[in-house]
Amino acid sequence: MRVAFQGEPGAYSEAAALEHFGSQIETQPQISFEAVFHCAESGECDMGLIPIENSLAGSIHQNYDLLLKKTLYVIGEHLMPIHHCLIALPGASLAGIRKVISHPQALAQCDGYLHTLAGVAVEPVYDTAGSVKMMRQQGDPGIAAIASRRAAELYHMAILADCIEDHPANFTRFLAIGREPATPKSDAKTSIVFSLVNQPGALFKALSVFALRDIDLTKIESRPLVGKPWEYYFYIDFIGSVSDPACERALAHLGEYASMLRVLGSYPLYKLKTD
Amino acid sequence: MRVAFQGEPGAYSEAAALEHFGSQIETQPQISFEAVFHCAESGECDMGLIPIENSLAGSIHQNYDLLLKKTLYVIGEHLMPIHHCLIALPGASLAGIRKVISHPQALAQCDGYLHTLAGVAVEPVYDTAGSVKMMRQQGDPGIAAIASRRAAELYHMAILADCIEDHPANFTRFLAIGREPATPKSDAKTSIVFSLVNQPGALFKALSVFALRDIDLTKIESRPLVGKPWEYYFYIDFIGSVSDPACERALAHLGEYASMLRVLGSYPLYKLKTD
Repeated sequence: MRVAFQGEPGAYSEAAALEHFGSQIETQPQISFEAVFHCAESGECDMGLIPIENSLAGSIHQNYDLLLKKTLYVIGEHLMPIHHCLIALPGASLAGIRKVISHPQALAQCDGYLHTLAGVAVEPVYDTAGSVKMMRQQGDPGIAAIASRRAAELYHMAILADCIEDHPANFTRFLAIGREPATPKSDAKTSIVFSLVNQPGALFKALSVFALRDIDLTKIESRPLVGKPWEYYFYIDFIGSVSDPACERALAHLGEYASMLRVLGSYPLYKLKTD
Repeated sequence: MRVAFQGEPGAYSEAAALEHFGSQIETQPQISFEAVFHCAESGECDMGLIPIENSLAGSIHQNYDLLLKKTLYVIGEHLMPIHHCLIALPGASLAGIRKVISHPQALAQCDGYLHTLAGVAVEPVYDTAGSVKMMRQQGDPGIAAIASRRAAELYHMAILADCIEDHPANFTRFLAIGREPATPKSDAKTSIVFSLVNQPGALFKALSVFALRDIDLTKIESRPLVGKPWEYYFYIDFIGSVSDPACERALAHLGEYASMLRVLGSYPLYKLKTD
């Protein structure tokens, strides 16, 4: 089974794909999230795994937009604790670091730590593991990258500091995407996207279809509706499967208010293992 | 009156500040949004003007987080149509462009146009007007920047293409922030932020306080509650002022459900001038 992810080998998304699908899969690095969707849509790979939300830095909005633009189903979710390392060339010292590079999300998650490094410039690049690769190529001991311990080891680099994320409760939620919908048996979650006619109380009515049936919402996200300034697409995740009678009725009810409604997929609810 | 904005002279935020407060103000360029807040908080300037949302690319989440972190009031809003130009050195040709630099939001708003430029690399930098300044400094005719016509003129650069945003309905909404709350007389809008106890139907109940009083919501945004994975702060804008009796009662009612509630400010509702 081939699974596409965004980033270089050693990226958090690759580690999540291996955890989620098992170590027997073949991971396929892609340059962008769009390329991950394209790869899964065209059949070049079987599935994709994308980050959708981080518990410190928030949603990855580009992936919300791509879920709407593309025709793939959400077939699974995966939660992974994220621990960032400050990584530099072997022999480099923390005092000598003048520039830190990494993906904007990783930089955002380490914002507090980075503020403690006086006089250090911060530069966003396309990927966490890719920032380690770039740092190695540039061969400058004044540059450090932020990425996983696994990326440091893969590129044989030194770890100057570990667990530099601003808060220990740093998790990323990933979504698995594929061409065929999943059919979860029990303990499911469903992701939908809809738009509403712009009138007072519209969102309240939309949420009533879940509240009146005791269906638990776990996430709401809004994104601009392109071409209609200050109107929005709403993305909602709720507990339950589209095949549950109450959820089915809730979605039919939502259809009465929505100007557009699409089910992105029902999939098994991920439960974090506690050791 | 001194008004801080993020970016270099010629930035869209500076143009918005001049439109909003009048051309007699003194604009103060700042390196980051955080610096704009700091400047307004410390009294180094009288007010700040920050972008909060674009109708194509969505919310500027960092500014939502800063509104919560800092203690300033939202005292006004301003809407401005955004038209981007592709800007290069005088004499440069479109066919010779190999790299386009600009602020990530501007790049996102021109994503479709950029895909039509085959083999061109895209590189995010800290500012739109700043990207023109960088391009001029580097003196490379293969580099183009995306910024306003005003920025091109200010730095004496050539415009290779105009109105390259993906959609003509491209507006940015700005917020004015200051140390003292505004007291709008009529036609007001109010911005609030709150968190909820994580239980089924919590957001539905929160929205009911507005729907049951026919108060119109214009925006809802969610941001992660740091340290509590998968719990959120909700930012809501609604039509009305905190001094309107119905709004006052709605906020008191919301206080019954909210674990935290803060009014960011009531301010005059901005109405786009139509010629």
